[in-house]
Amino acid sequence: MPGKNLQVTLANRPTGWVEEANFKLVESAIPTPGDGEMLLRVKWLSLDPYMRGRMNDTKSYAAKVELGEVMAGGTVAEVVESRNPKFSKGDSVVCAGGWQQYAISDGKGLMKVPPGIPESAFLGAAGMPGVTAWYGLMKIGTPKAGETVVVSSASGAVGGVVGQLAKIHGCRAVGIAGGPAKCEYVVKELGFDACVDYKAADFRAQLKSAVPDGIDIYFDNVGGEILDTVLSRVNAFARIPLCGLVSGYNGQPIPLNNVFSLLTNRVRLEGFIVSDHLPLWPEAIKELAGHVATGKIKYRESVAHGLENAPKAFIGLLKGENFGKQLVKVS
Amino acid sequence: MPGKNLQVTLANRPTGWVEEANFKLVESAIPTPGDGEMLLRVKWLSLDPYMRGRMNDTKSYAAKVELGEVMAGGTVAEVVESRNPKFSKGDSVVCAGGWQQYAISDGKGLMKVPPGIPESAFLGAAGMPGVTAWYGLMKIGTPKAGETVVVSSASGAVGGVVGQLAKIHGCRAVGIAGGPAKCEYVVKELGFDACVDYKAADFRAQLKSAVPDGIDIYFDNVGGEILDTVLSRVNAFARIPLCGLVSGYNGQPIPLNNVFSLLTNRVRLEGFIVSDHLPLWPEAIKELAGHVATGKIKYRESVAHGLENAPKAFIGLLKGENFGKQLVKVS
Repeated sequence: MPGKNLQVTLANRPTGWVEEANFKLVESAIPTPGDGEMLLRVKWLSLDPYMRGRMNDTKSYAAKVELGEVMAGGTVAEVVESRNPKFSKGDSVVCAGGWQQYAISDGKGLMKVPPGIPESAFLGAAGMPGVTAWYGLMKIGTPKAGETVVVSSASGAVGGVVGQLAKIHGCRAVGIAGGPAKCEYVVKELGFDACVDYKAADFRAQLKSAVPDGIDIYFDNVGGEILDTVLSRVNAFARIPLCGLVSGYNGQPIPLNNVFSLLTNRVRLEGFIVSDHLPLWPEAIKELAGHVATGKIKYRESVAHGLENAPKAFIGLLKGENFGKQLVKVS
Repeated sequence: MPGKNLQVTLANRPTGWVEEANFKLVESAIPTPGDGEMLLRVKWLSLDPYMRGRMNDTKSYAAKVELGEVMAGGTVAEVVESRNPKFSKGDSVVCAGGWQQYAISDGKGLMKVPPGIPESAFLGAAGMPGVTAWYGLMKIGTPKAGETVVVSSASGAVGGVVGQLAKIHGCRAVGIAGGPAKCEYVVKELGFDACVDYKAADFRAQLKSAVPDGIDIYFDNVGGEILDTVLSRVNAFARIPLCGLVSGYNGQPIPLNNVFSLLTNRVRLEGFIVSDHLPLWPEAIKELAGHVATGKIKYRESVAHGLENAPKAFIGLLKGENFGKQLVKVS
């Protein structure tokens, strides 16, 4: 097969905010699948906040990306050549294809895209971000009908699902998002009961009036001051699934000041990483895809076109400039 | 019955460190029990860090002590007059008698002191502090044999039991305490595998070498910098029962800096208050009293003599000047 494989590699590690200069666009030959392998053409690349951690040279829960290596990432791809009996040419699969146009896979960890909903949803509401929302809310948050669930980054791929799942389970859902447009989307399109703008001068007062019965579950994607503010309004025995710390991804320290609230309110704060819980993914994906199919879970996508625009789109994601699930249409 | 009832009341609320001037010694008449009530003569008064919180004018999990009110506290007392059919004159009971020589009780929440171990143990290793250790370690920490358990305030009434219970359950027990004398006691008398002096200049290095396999459970009594240091050595899926925040009881903010460790190590941090779990107390006390009787759980007591010395002893407790369980021998 002639042609080139465009790839985005890690050129150097960011100190602080990620810059386009941290990445390098390279062209290599399209690889040839060996026995039992397949050649995949990437159609959709998912951009997610966790990728920021992979760019650091520090010990983390996930393997870091080495300098010169292709950036890791979830993808939807089409099988263009198969030497694996379980997959056929033309199959659409969800896989960790990375930031590149073509990838080789031995089939391990691949999921064939089920019918019924758009395939890009398996990178969003019915994919890793959706399962993240599902695991954190259902398994750590353990919501009970009538409780109040607050989620930060509420307009994002994870946060949007958290609130809609909370509604499905009979809870009051309150989002936290940046700016009036995102807040309006969270309430009017996603159906949250309220959404509070953390950029507003009266954020603290707005949050207070949005949670008249206090907060039972806070699904935290950001950490920092917002977590401290939420801790001033939690109820006894509140649960805080700690999913992300976007506020600190760029090197600023994000101390937690309101530690006393954890004790006096007997709060359970639990960090989690969805890839620790792979056995639960099929159950979660089936449930989420069902809710997407019936319209109970809605989502919005921001799509960058062309792999060469992935770095810029990723930087925008980290700065909160995107809206909903950030994807790159690769081919 | 002639005679007076010496009492310690809350004269004014502390701002920062507690001072003797926050208390007032008063004498009142010995009260007379009504129908169904008993007159109790307090023998032992327990002094515990939680009492600091009751002195504040802020909303807390427990009712604050009002100005002019007798300070609340756990006691072992003798029934000197009973108009309650369930208790007889001469019975020894564990009860919330408060900082006074005589108390009235209707019998609710009282436990007759079982035989077999010293009665003061029911205010320590086989009492509220022991149950606190038991609940936090066993129900939140969920130790598995071979894991490493670290506990702060290791020479104290709670911490000492945590480490000895950890040993009983096959764990490596590492204490954190202030000064060489306390550390020696923790290792030589209580049988911990190691104890690290948080006042030492090389505390961080000492802790590192004491936990060669990392930390699976950190039973936290103090918060502050020690919690941050521990968080730099926790293993994946570590559990942190948050029992106290002595480092912040006097008004200093105690920010938690190492929030990232909670996420990357998927730590579960859970505040708890033992009085939320009263149904489990009989089971816990039975187990703890058994271990005290067989010598598997050892303890030391600091005894102040005379109720008038309770304020000074309490201030010493908050400053870490006591050694083991702090008691007042009232009569």
